[in-house]
Amino acid sequence: MIPQGILTTLSQSDEGGYNYDYATVPFLAETLTSSLATAKITTDWRSVRLFVIPSIIYLIHNNVQFATLTYVDTSTYQIMGNLKIVTTAILFRLFLKRKLSNLQWMAIGLLAVGTTTSQVKGCGEASCDSLFTAPIQGYLLGILSAGLSALAGIYTEFLMKRNNDSLYWQNLQLYTFGSLFNVARLLADDFRLGFEKGPWWQRIFDGYSITTWLVVLNLGSTGLLVSWLMKYADNIVKVYSTSMAMLLTMVASIYLFSFKPTVQLFLGIIICIMSLHMYFAPPQTLVDLPVTNEAHPKTLKQVIVEEKTDS
Amino acid sequence: MIPQGILTTLSQSDEGGYNYDYATVPFLAETLTSSLATAKITTDWRSVRLFVIPSIIYLIHNNVQFATLTYVDTSTYQIMGNLKIVTTAILFRLFLKRKLSNLQWMAIGLLAVGTTTSQVKGCGEASCDSLFTAPIQGYLLGILSAGLSALAGIYTEFLMKRNNDSLYWQNLQLYTFGSLFNVARLLADDFRLGFEKGPWWQRIFDGYSITTWLVVLNLGSTGLLVSWLMKYADNIVKVYSTSMAMLLTMVASIYLFSFKPTVQLFLGIIICIMSLHMYFAPPQTLVDLPVTNEAHPKTLKQVIVEEKTDS
Repeated sequence: MIPQGILTTLSQSDEGGYNYDYATVPFLAETLTSSLATAKITTDWRSVRLFVIPSIIYLIHNNVQFATLTYVDTSTYQIMGNLKIVTTAILFRLFLKRKLSNLQWMAIGLLAVGTTTSQVKGCGEASCDSLFTAPIQGYLLGILSAGLSALAGIYTEFLMKRNNDSLYWQNLQLYTFGSLFNVARLLADDFRLGFEKGPWWQRIFDGYSITTWLVVLNLGSTGLLVSWLMKYADNIVKVYSTSMAMLLTMVASIYLFSFKPTVQLFLGIIICIMSLHMYFAPPQTLVDLPVTNEAHPKTLKQVIVEEKTDS
Repeated sequence: MIPQGILTTLSQSDEGGYNYDYATVPFLAETLTSSLATAKITTDWRSVRLFVIPSIIYLIHNNVQFATLTYVDTSTYQIMGNLKIVTTAILFRLFLKRKLSNLQWMAIGLLAVGTTTSQVKGCGEASCDSLFTAPIQGYLLGILSAGLSALAGIYTEFLMKRNNDSLYWQNLQLYTFGSLFNVARLLADDFRLGFEKGPWWQRIFDGYSITTWLVVLNLGSTGLLVSWLMKYADNIVKVYSTSMAMLLTMVASIYLFSFKPTVQLFLGIIICIMSLHMYFAPPQTLVDLPVTNEAHPKTLKQVIVEEKTDS
């Protein structure tokens, strides 16, 4: 996958805005994804309604996100976004009952710290005085936003893993609801503006360039990849993939858009790689375990353990 | 111990300089320390000459430090100083033959990353363009400086632990040589300036205030604490103590000198605390070990293991 941020930036006009209606992109991506997903269909129709829930959570999340941004600036918002890593792990433990070792909890914390470190504004960059000076509501909404985002991810994993339905059929359900919600959003935008630009379906491809289509394709294929991760891996794998993709995007941006490399990006990458290793490496490769019950097989013939009473 | 940086800053004159000759401070601190150290004396006189080596290493280190600063600015120098954490661990392994688990190596790396993160310049602070743009000699000298500093620490630990001499007698030897080297430095300074201000012993207490004496006392007691750590703990414990003290100093400076708290200080503290826990926590509290050879004692009476041939 090409990191979405890079493609989106490339698809901007020279003035930095979008020539096309950005709201049409997720609609097309989700429609594309759901039409790709019609290969195998099993018939557990009763569970279809469960697939509307992620779309509802994302709808609430979008509104909370909007409300958060009225209280905090975008730098603070971006840094608070890393909370999602921690809330995902907590809901992963609570709802999916997956146990993490203490070291894995520390790895999750470090991943959030690492991605945050990479985003710390360097000297000379704008909007630094405003960091963490927002009203308390901003932070509470940020935490709520992180919780909702994690909840959508965890619920999707639950949906994808709860039965043996094919990934294609599950995707169809997931992205059909996604498409419907995006249509609703486009319609709502039209009503809000009093149809002064005409209905959305008449100007859906206005201003689309090849790069815009690449953004659509990329968003759609990312959606399919995430579904695949939810079914065959888990939310933690997704969180690591997303974080690594973000760091790769930042490194690529240094070359593509001649951004200045910062010490904090370098430190963030080291922290995240260490976190990855801490989380996924087999524990016995990380720690030297106390030697218990080890002996050369040839010297081990008969062991008699006397009966003990518990103390 | 009161962090030295805070006391030193407090002992400065209002113009930010020193009213006293700063070179007299380590001399007095080491003389004070060695005179405190005369309580118990054992008589392994042959080994006295070994105690001159740390002083020689520190002398070379001071000169390398001076040379490094001609190539790099102080921000880069400060950040490179964190390399000492890694070189100490490497020499600890190589010369003292102390094995670290992979997790402990990661903890050491994280500690260096954490202290560096806390020192990353925030927006609006000066001298950020110059970071990591110095000539290659600067970095090589920085690495040499980190190596020498670690070597002095590791050698001191070897000296303190090689026999059962009392800590007092070991301190006397260590700090007598330290005092002599400082006297040599004061004399060298006098010769360099052609005695225009008179010999150092005539103006040793010129400009001393109570705070200056606190700096001397603090430096002396820190020296005794480090000796104690070298004898009864080890260099890694010292490295963690120093790093935590540095972070505490930065937090205290926020209150004492109304410095602005930065996100990177907050992140650095989290990283260092995680590193501390990773290094020192018993491994079995960090990872869930695969259950091997566990059974209820009452059901375990006799175990017969058949003889196997090695495959």
